[in-house]
Amino acid sequence: MTDTLTPAPTAVLTAPQAAAAAASAAPAVAAASREERARWLEAVADALDAAKAELVPVAVAESHLPEARLTGEVGRTTGQLRLFAAVLRDGGYLEVIIDHARPDATPPQPELRRLLVPTGPVAVYSASNFPFAFSVAGGDTASALAAGCPVVVKAHSGHPELSRRTAAAVSAALAGAGAPDGIFGLIEGTEAGRVLIQEPAITAGAFTGSLTGGRALFDLASGRPAPVPFYAELGSINPVVVTADAVSEDGAALATGLVGSFTLGAGQFCTKPGVVFVPAGAGFEQLVAASMGGATAAPLLNQRIATGFGQGLGALAEHDAVAVVAGARSAADADAPEPLVLATTAAAVVDDPEALLAECFGPVTLLVSYASADELAAALATVEGSLTGTIHAAEGEDVRDLTALLAPRVGRLLFGGWPTGVAVTWSQHHGGPWPATTSVHTSVGATAIRRFLRPLTFQDAPEAALPPELHESNPLGVPRRVDGVLEV
Amino acid sequence: MTDTLTPAPTAVLTAPQAAAAAASAAPAVAAASREERARWLEAVADALDAAKAELVPVAVAESHLPEARLTGEVGRTTGQLRLFAAVLRDGGYLEVIIDHARPDATPPQPELRRLLVPTGPVAVYSASNFPFAFSVAGGDTASALAAGCPVVVKAHSGHPELSRRTAAAVSAALAGAGAPDGIFGLIEGTEAGRVLIQEPAITAGAFTGSLTGGRALFDLASGRPAPVPFYAELGSINPVVVTADAVSEDGAALATGLVGSFTLGAGQFCTKPGVVFVPAGAGFEQLVAASMGGATAAPLLNQRIATGFGQGLGALAEHDAVAVVAGARSAADADAPEPLVLATTAAAVVDDPEALLAECFGPVTLLVSYASADELAAALATVEGSLTGTIHAAEGEDVRDLTALLAPRVGRLLFGGWPTGVAVTWSQHHGGPWPATTSVHTSVGATAIRRFLRPLTFQDAPEAALPPELHESNPLGVPRRVDGVLEV
Repeated sequence: MTDTLTPAPTAVLTAPQAAAAAASAAPAVAAASREERARWLEAVADALDAAKAELVPVAVAESHLPEARLTGEVGRTTGQLRLFAAVLRDGGYLEVIIDHARPDATPPQPELRRLLVPTGPVAVYSASNFPFAFSVAGGDTASALAAGCPVVVKAHSGHPELSRRTAAAVSAALAGAGAPDGIFGLIEGTEAGRVLIQEPAITAGAFTGSLTGGRALFDLASGRPAPVPFYAELGSINPVVVTADAVSEDGAALATGLVGSFTLGAGQFCTKPGVVFVPAGAGFEQLVAASMGGATAAPLLNQRIATGFGQGLGALAEHDAVAVVAGARSAADADAPEPLVLATTAAAVVDDPEALLAECFGPVTLLVSYASADELAAALATVEGSLTGTIHAAEGEDVRDLTALLAPRVGRLLFGGWPTGVAVTWSQHHGGPWPATTSVHTSVGATAIRRFLRPLTFQDAPEAALPPELHESNPLGVPRRVDGVLEV
Repeated sequence: MTDTLTPAPTAVLTAPQAAAAAASAAPAVAAASREERARWLEAVADALDAAKAELVPVAVAESHLPEARLTGEVGRTTGQLRLFAAVLRDGGYLEVIIDHARPDATPPQPELRRLLVPTGPVAVYSASNFPFAFSVAGGDTASALAAGCPVVVKAHSGHPELSRRTAAAVSAALAGAGAPDGIFGLIEGTEAGRVLIQEPAITAGAFTGSLTGGRALFDLASGRPAPVPFYAELGSINPVVVTADAVSEDGAALATGLVGSFTLGAGQFCTKPGVVFVPAGAGFEQLVAASMGGATAAPLLNQRIATGFGQGLGALAEHDAVAVVAGARSAADADAPEPLVLATTAAAVVDDPEALLAECFGPVTLLVSYASADELAAALATVEGSLTGTIHAAEGEDVRDLTALLAPRVGRLLFGGWPTGVAVTWSQHHGGPWPATTSVHTSVGATAIRRFLRPLTFQDAPEAALPPELHESNPLGVPRRVDGVLEV
């Protein structure tokens, strides 16, 4: 008897060991049926649900996040795994396309049958701020396994014990469900992570974290003798625009909502609203200040993030064009800094976007006042790519111009509400133009699976050589396009 | 009156000028309806068809390719443009996904509506070996315009006059069809091409050509302050496997087919069968030698390719393990080298794959004899990523093992036939693991459009802010997935 519900931790591997194990497992993982892989994912979800009471306290101790939040995050994590089981059973993600032969065409056309197949072993780099949902058994792992790719996870140094215990639970669940040996491995350490992405067997990387760390790995992936895609989610300031009419309609509720969103998780979300464009002279700054009563200091995830926040905040708060609206400026290295609201003007942003629109990961937001639509447009034009953009307008107000301004810069555009919730659904997109992400793909939602698939087209193949999804009679009932016409 | 049917050439731009023009056109191009863009593509196709009699002689003079082949290639080019018009009208490429709000979920889910939108200006690098179909108005240009992206083409130095005249025809047709100014531009020169991919306004590159040239541009694209994807089609040896039973069944016809394929277009196809695994002792080498009677010397595209062929052939033909089966070894720099068939063994390939399996662009192929299934498997394991793989087996022969060996290395797997024909259809895939291509996307066929699109998800948007393809009533009848269920 051990004193834990999860199995004894398996050995942490070196990057070459883990890559070799993944490579040897790849053919069997790819050859498994969609139904088999769906059951593997469900087994992992069940195992995590069963281990929740043991894992959450470890996560609390290592991340300083509240228990309720982490318990909810386990549910999000197992929900993601089960969503990909549904994606597998649906089969639409295979993008099956069949063109029958056209011997009378000029030139004659052969029969072509296309579907997506797994790329091979995937390297997943965990994030610090979601110890479950963007970590060892998070969305990247779930989508790569669903695609049919073995996974090697690089554990985040912010929650090493949780990573090992989660990995042990994942490994045991996969083995128990009959998945091939080597389908899942764990490595630790920054240098091991750098070695991993350069291993020839690795066919793609997935990453959520800082611009600096992600860029370094992206450069290694792109610089390989045989480059591989590195799907990284990096920095995002998530611009919000509040119209004058929206402030008139219910400015107090907006202010409360903003404070709740930018302080959620101590401001440590990729989707934190970091810059809010507000009408000049409408008194919104005062409403935000009045809403800050309930916003209290909360501990940050780890010392590295605390240091980064202190540095970023220093550069921002000491900028000549920036004033403090509400909250206290804590010591630069505070473990649990006070939430802070800063303010500047649209004209100042146009003058110095690099300093004023830099992401500052932690509990701070910057209100940018604009005096006219032209001023707003000029300031928005300096905003780099973000995961989200949000428009707060009054009921019935025409938002088409704002939509046109924000849409080119973001991956998700919200009308009302706050960006810090990221629903895990079929249509979610969690990505955006650089530096939000390094690719045109999402890391959240059903279509995240596309990152780990490549097309394979069979020409004039005998049916015995085809996967069942490409058989003429469509025995597994997958959605497909035949001779140009979609069929479901 | 001028003496040409195409308009007077428009000025060739510098790379920054062309990028700026494309950037200014991008919003209008993106905002055009799918039907408008379909008509632009059809206008370009009509203009090229009308200018065919003038353009083909220019192409013959610059490329040394035969008139009949080039006339056919114009048809392929206009066919591609019209296929993308059909893709636009179908609308499935938008990947519309709608999830209705679920206020009772934990946590509550907002309404999310997703579709793909254009990334912005695209840089297209023309190929030498398809002066029409992979050049100024080729598949990359057609798919990028279809996606809603302005295009800047870097002309290939092998056919400058044809590039200018084609560009003039394209520009005039687009303007005549009402497309925005700046939607299409042409630049010339290697250095201009390097500058272009580094222009901040460029959001993606597309390239067909050599490994060296493509890798250099890929590195520039990846190394930008804001990296962009560079979709390059590079080298490919297109392995073919011939079984002993296939030789017994009709070896002579296979030999004839092989000679026709590897000498087509003087061997200057990305899909040329460059290495053919043949059963030892079955006499296939002799059958190939006997089929070489009709294979005559043909001029190569240009001096650079002739030089490269001479060098590549030198390294290969002088390898200790290589023998000449048929054909003559021309002088290293011959403008019109003789077709050549070389031979080696599977064991030699395993010993020195780098030398023996290097792509040699021109009229040569290498027969690799294998004495057993194990020898064949060992040799195939050394084959790098290729655009195609081909299996020639006897009627009814079990090809599942060969399929499993070849599928991981190729993007298109042929059963019978020869890879040099690439049908332009919905299901075509022209890509493969590195070094065949730099990405998991195709440059030929309907899905090539995916390269120039990114997802955008609207959360809780008023219908007035949504594109019509996302309206609840689906007024334009696009295929979509609603609450997890595909609808057509």
